[in-house]
Parts: sequence; C-alpha cells; structure tokens
Amino acid sequence: MVKIGILGVGTVGASVANILEANADIIEARAGKKIVTKLGVVKNLSKDRGVNIKLSDNPYDVVDDPEIDIVVELMGGVEEPYKLVKKALENGKAVVTANKALLAYHRYELQEIAGDTPLMYEASTAGGIPIIGALRNGLAANHIESIQGIMNGTTNYMLTKMINEGAEYEDVLKEAQELGYAEADPTFDVDGFDASHKLLILASIAYGIDAKPEDILIEGIEDITQTDVAFAKDFGYEIKLLGIAKKVEDGVELRVHPTMIPASSMIAKVDGVMNAVSVVGDCVGETMYYGAGAGGDATASAVIADIVDIVRGNTAPMLGYKKCLEGSAFELLPEEDIVTHYYLRMEVNDKPGVLAKITNELEQFDISIESMLQKPHKNDEHVKLLFTTHACQELKIQAAMVELKRLDCVHGKITMMRIEK
Amino acid sequence: MVKIGILGVGTVGASVANILEANADIIEARAGKKIVTKLGVVKNLSKDRGVNIKLSDNPYDVVDDPEIDIVVELMGGVEEPYKLVKKALENGKAVVTANKALLAYHRYELQEIAGDTPLMYEASTAGGIPIIGALRNGLAANHIESIQGIMNGTTNYMLTKMINEGAEYEDVLKEAQELGYAEADPTFDVDGFDASHKLLILASIAYGIDAKPEDILIEGIEDITQTDVAFAKDFGYEIKLLGIAKKVEDGVELRVHPTMIPASSMIAKVDGVMNAVSVVGDCVGETMYYGAGAGGDATASAVIADIVDIVRGNTAPMLGYKKCLEGSAFELLPEEDIVTHYYLRMEVNDKPGVLAKITNELEQFDISIESMLQKPHKNDEHVKLLFTTHACQELKIQAAMVELKRLDCVHGKITMMRIEK
Repeated sequence: MVKIGILGVGTVGASVANILEANADIIEARAGKKIVTKLGVVKNLSKDRGVNIKLSDNPYDVVDDPEIDIVVELMGGVEEPYKLVKKALENGKAVVTANKALLAYHRYELQEIAGDTPLMYEASTAGGIPIIGALRNGLAANHIESIQGIMNGTTNYMLTKMINEGAEYEDVLKEAQELGYAEADPTFDVDGFDASHKLLILASIAYGIDAKPEDILIEGIEDITQTDVAFAKDFGYEIKLLGIAKKVEDGVELRVHPTMIPASSMIAKVDGVMNAVSVVGDCVGETMYYGAGAGGDATASAVIADIVDIVRGNTAPMLGYKKCLEGSAFELLPEEDIVTHYYLRMEVNDKPGVLAKITNELEQFDISIESMLQKPHKNDEHVKLLFTTHACQELKIQAAMVELKRLDCVHGKITMMRIEK
Repeated sequence: MVKIGILGVGTVGASVANILEANADIIEARAGKKIVTKLGVVKNLSKDRGVNIKLSDNPYDVVDDPEIDIVVELMGGVEEPYKLVKKALENGKAVVTANKALLAYHRYELQEIAGDTPLMYEASTAGGIPIIGALRNGLAANHIESIQGIMNGTTNYMLTKMINEGAEYEDVLKEAQELGYAEADPTFDVDGFDASHKLLILASIAYGIDAKPEDILIEGIEDITQTDVAFAKDFGYEIKLLGIAKKVEDGVELRVHPTMIPASSMIAKVDGVMNAVSVVGDCVGETMYYGAGAGGDATASAVIADIVDIVRGNTAPMLGYKKCLEGSAFELLPEEDIVTHYYLRMEVNDKPGVLAKITNELEQFDISIESMLQKPHKNDEHVKLLFTTHACQELKIQAAMVELKRLDCVHGKITMMRIEK
C-alpha cells in the first residue's frame, strides 16, 4: 500500500482525494498497488472540503510523517510550497506538484535537491492533458523542433468570443469574469504570465533551458481589437495566445504572445476554454495534444497519473535531458534575435505620400511589406493602415516602430502582433 | 549498452536503425543508456536498405542471440512473426512490435507468454502518436468512457477529398492509389479492417476486451456518395471512418464504420492522411491526440519510444488492466445491441402516401425520424429520401431496413450510416 499526503485540499486536492477513492479499482490495477490518502492539509479546518479524508492544519504532519510515501503539493504560491517541497524531498519522499509558479522559479533547484527521488508535475502544464508524459516518453526518439501551445483557457475563451461573435475585449473580459473563467484581477491570465510558467516547464523538458518568466518575451491580449480580428479573418489567420518554444540555429526562442496562425492549422481550431499543445519532433513530425487545461477533476487526473508513474517506477528525472547532456543544453535566444513575421496596425493621415514615408522608413531597417489593408477611420482625416511583413528580426521591427511613431503622419499607438506561418 | 535486433528492415525498420544512430545523443540522454542496433534481418540480402547496420537473412540470428536484449518486430504478416516473437519472449528478450495484425489476433496469448518480460507496441496504433502511452500512463486515473479514432490515413485522405472537393469515391480511390496512399488492392484500408486492428488494441488496454476482428462490426466507406456528403454538410456533420470503443451499461461497443459526427467536434477537424484519437475519461473529460498515423520516421518514433521505456523500466504490462482485474473485465456488447442514431438514404416513388408507408414501417420498430430531406432524382419518377433517426437499437434498424426494402415504393439498395452526437 502506498500512502499519500495532500498539501492544499481546495478544488484540485479534493478531486485527487475523491478520485483515488472512487476509481480505486482501476488505479490499483494500473499502479499494481493500492493508493490511499493518509492526510490532507488545509489552512482553515472548519470549512467543509467534501472529502472523506483526515485533515490537519499543519503541513509538517504530512511532510515529516515517515508513513507517507508521496507528498502532493497543491497549495499555490511560491515560497511556502518551496520550503515544504524541499523538506519533503530531503525526507526522501516523492513529490507530485501542480504548482506552475513554483516550478517556473525553482524547478532546477528542486530537481537538484530531489536527485533520484521522484519530483513530478504533469498537472502543472495544460491541466489534464498528458503533455509532459508525451515529451518524456512518447517522443523520446525526437529532437524537438518546436512547441506551440494554447496553455491558458481564460484567454482562449476570450479570443474565441472576440473572433466568433465580434465582441470587444472589455465586454468579453467582463463576461469571462462573471462566468468565473477570469479572476477579478485578470492580469495573470490576460497578460500571458500563466502561459509563460507552463511554457518554461515544457521548454525545460524539451531543451533543458533554465530561464525564469522575467527572462522571456511575454505579451498579453489586451490590445487586440475587432480591426485585428477582421484583418486576420481576411488573410486566413486565427488569433491565439500561444506559448512558443522553437529551436533555431543559435538557440531556442521562448515567447508568449497573441499570434496570428493559419486558420487551417490544427491548433487554430481549438476553441473556448480548451487547451492544446502542438509539438514538432524531427522524426514524428507534428503531433498535437488537446484537452481540458483546468478544472478539479481534469487536473487531478494528471496528478494521479504522476502518482501511478511513481508507484510503477516510471520516474526518470523530468529534467533528465539537461542532466545527461551537461554542457550541450540549449541556450535561450535573446529576445531581440527572434525572427518572425509581423502584423502592424496604425492610424495615419489620409494624404498622398504617407504610404511612401512609411515604406521608406521600414526599408531603412530591411523590412519589407507582405500584405496591406487600408481602412477608413471614424475620424475622416485618418485611415487605419494594417500590414504584415516578411520575416524580419525583432530588434529591427522594434526600432522601426520607434521611428514610425516619430513620423508626423502617424497618430497614436502602433499595435504589433507576431505571425507564425 | 543495450543491443537491439530488427526483424524486417523495410521503411520503418530502416528508420529505426537510422534514427537510433542520428539521434543517439538525445535517446541516450532520455534512456540513460546507449542503444545500438546489433543486427537487422531481411529476406533479400542483395537489396540496398540505406542503413549502416549488419544484415542477416536468418531471423534466428536475432531471436537466439544471447547478446541481443530487445527484438524489434517489423515484418508484417501474422503467423511467421508470431512464431518469432514467441521464441524471442521465451528466450527472455523484450519485444517491441508495430505489427497490428499480429496483435489483433494474438495479443493475449503473447502477453501470457511474455509474463513480466516487456512486450510493447506503441507503433501498432496511430503511427507516431503516443496514444498507448496516454492510455497506460497519462490517463491512469480514469475509467475510459469512450475512444473514437481516425486510425486509417488512406480513408481519411479519401473522405477529406470527397467532402472538400466534391470528388466521387472511385476517382478519389484512383488518385490515392496513384499517390501511394492506397494499395492496388485497397480492401484492407477502405473496408475498415486496418482500423479494426488498431481499435482492438486500444480496447484491450482500456477495457481488457479479448476480441478478434471477426467478432466486431466493421464497415467500409465504399457506399458513400456525394448525396451523403451534401446531406452531412446541410445538417452540420462531417463524415469520418471512426473506430469506436464505448462503455455502455451492459458492456463495451466496438465498431468501425463511416460515421456522421458534429462538424464542431475536434476530431471532425482532422483532415487528410493525419490520424487522431479522442479519449473521454471520467475525470479528465475529452482529450485528443493527433499526428501522423504512418510513414517510416513517424512510426519509428513510436518504436523507439517503446525501446526507451523498456530501458527505463516503464514496462507495466500493456494489458495490465485485465490481468489485475480478473473477472471484472468488460464484455463485448453484441452488435445487435448497439444503440445510436442512424442516417438512411433510399430511392422511392415520387407519389403521395409513400412517406406515410415508410414512417409506418419504421414505427413498427419503434424508430422515429429526427430530420428528413427529399431530393429529386435524375429518374423523374423517383426521389431520393434521406433521413436521420432518433437513437434506436441496431437490431431494429437492421430489421426495419429489410422490411423497407420489401416495400413496392422503395427501389434498389438502402444505404445506412451511423451518427455519433
């Protein structure tokens, strides 16, 4: 019999305890051993958690209990769970965590502390989708060329509404908040931070890259308007907030931003709160993994998959690639060296010669225009100018945007979105 | 160092040998050991295979070599590979096979012979997609509610062409043959047999069902016409050849047939030669796995994933569920007890009272019509009658079709297709 302790019996923790009980037959059949929850830890013991397990308000009752084999960390936060996970690993206990923020900042230190003790986190990324298992096991033969993921359900729900129903950002956000998909302070989701944590975890497994959120390009969806949505439709794109990890000649690009992607690609077809991760391997080509990225039972499904893997002994270190290839892990490509296609939207004077000024400015930076659309603006003296560029360097487009803003004929903010072909 | 021998160095076998060499760095990093191909076996030694490995024309040079740890069987056929795999397992060697026909007929006997020796077959189902890994590991917490898979690229290519380009079956088949997607004798693909082998393998892992192809409902795509395609479009469906395994109250339905599915479902969006498998678990909800279902490198990716799993020790028996739950594995539901929605197409007299006759006949079998479309036929005296039914039992629709065919007002063949909502 294997005994687990759960730190944090909220929605996911309660699901873990309840599924271990309800599906005990099949879980024991697959793990080869009975798995029982010995104790759950909560802050407030007086609140009903809807579980049939013993509860304590002292996390050390789990972390220091010699009878507990596996500690499941579902607390959220960073520093408190870091301390407890560290202690659990030092006590020789296997750890399963769904805590993406903890991992975004401390995955390498924790792996170091863990050594050969299992530290697993399938549930930290894309909820119930077994994407980490796919990277660790199913695609083990492949050099990973790229990962593109819809890893935040809130923003995908919002973008789907904006695209399918023509709704504006502010209205969709309000609706998402009313439905409980978005928090009162939606920053963590809409600004791309949540997705960045998950991207960093996948990038570690695929490329052994030890980066933190502040090291990579992260942009949110707040500036997207119906003008952009209409342009994307006209030119055969969908707009998705993607986490992208891509191997290029000089390193690995890591970035989270709203992206125009061909409407015919599979990941463009993923709507609503669902998540999906597309992985391109050098042997297998493109594979895609789709499912619920959040929710108690779906996330618990991934937590229990890790527990079963631990019981079975399928526990090669998550960051095994870096560990085994010391010295040859990939480097994070500096943000300014990213090369991709760009979409720009700006408001300009409706006068002869304006287009020439803009294209001249772009030419200074070796940027050439691929497609263009001019739309009338409610202010009759201005028009909206929308265009896409051929592939160019991030450094150059950023510099060009600074120069374009200085032009007399350009008014207000220039909105930029990246395009993946 | 781990030594493998490859039985059958055709397209997939050559890819396995070449990828083990080209990607040796990452494979060793993930497996924890170096993996080398000691010997490949071919029938004709004089043919160039494009590999840097030693070749023999005697399979026992692999199967009986005490230095070889893992035998990779990629021969095709059933009885010859059965004999060799059996011998390899008896010699204590782990076996990896991509041979779906072998497994469709002998997976339980081979698992019995294997005992605790690893017998793995990720590549047998949906090519490079790690779907077996998902069922064994990633979804271990779940009772599987259903599996729906596009597991044959040839037929999906043909159906995509018929739907997107309005092409007729015979023309598309010819084109698929010219492109090498379909064999000169296309029966194995278009009649659904290939998909049925894969479905049986997945059903074993999910439900422990020991059935053979001849035990289950298998129908092909030959009878589909542009009339059906147009109807499906009008009513919001796509047509896909699906392998379906579904848990119902009295057992598990296993069936392969062209299926009308809502165009909004993810699996409906999978086009061309690609494969995808949608799995619904009781905790995780729907997950879907998408990728290349064939091709040397993609299939080799799955073969090598199994090899790495064996080296790592991630080798719980594939059919572990049945093994551990003796007596409580599921039963195959008899074909006639399947309950679903149906689409019928028939040619009838263009006269008053005909519709009443048909609906009366259906009523005798408790079948009620859900939607209907009547189309003029080139023969002016006949019309095409297309309709869908509410959920009813297979036994009743089959009996009703016999009676309908007997009616004077019904001419020629009645075409039936099942609908999954």
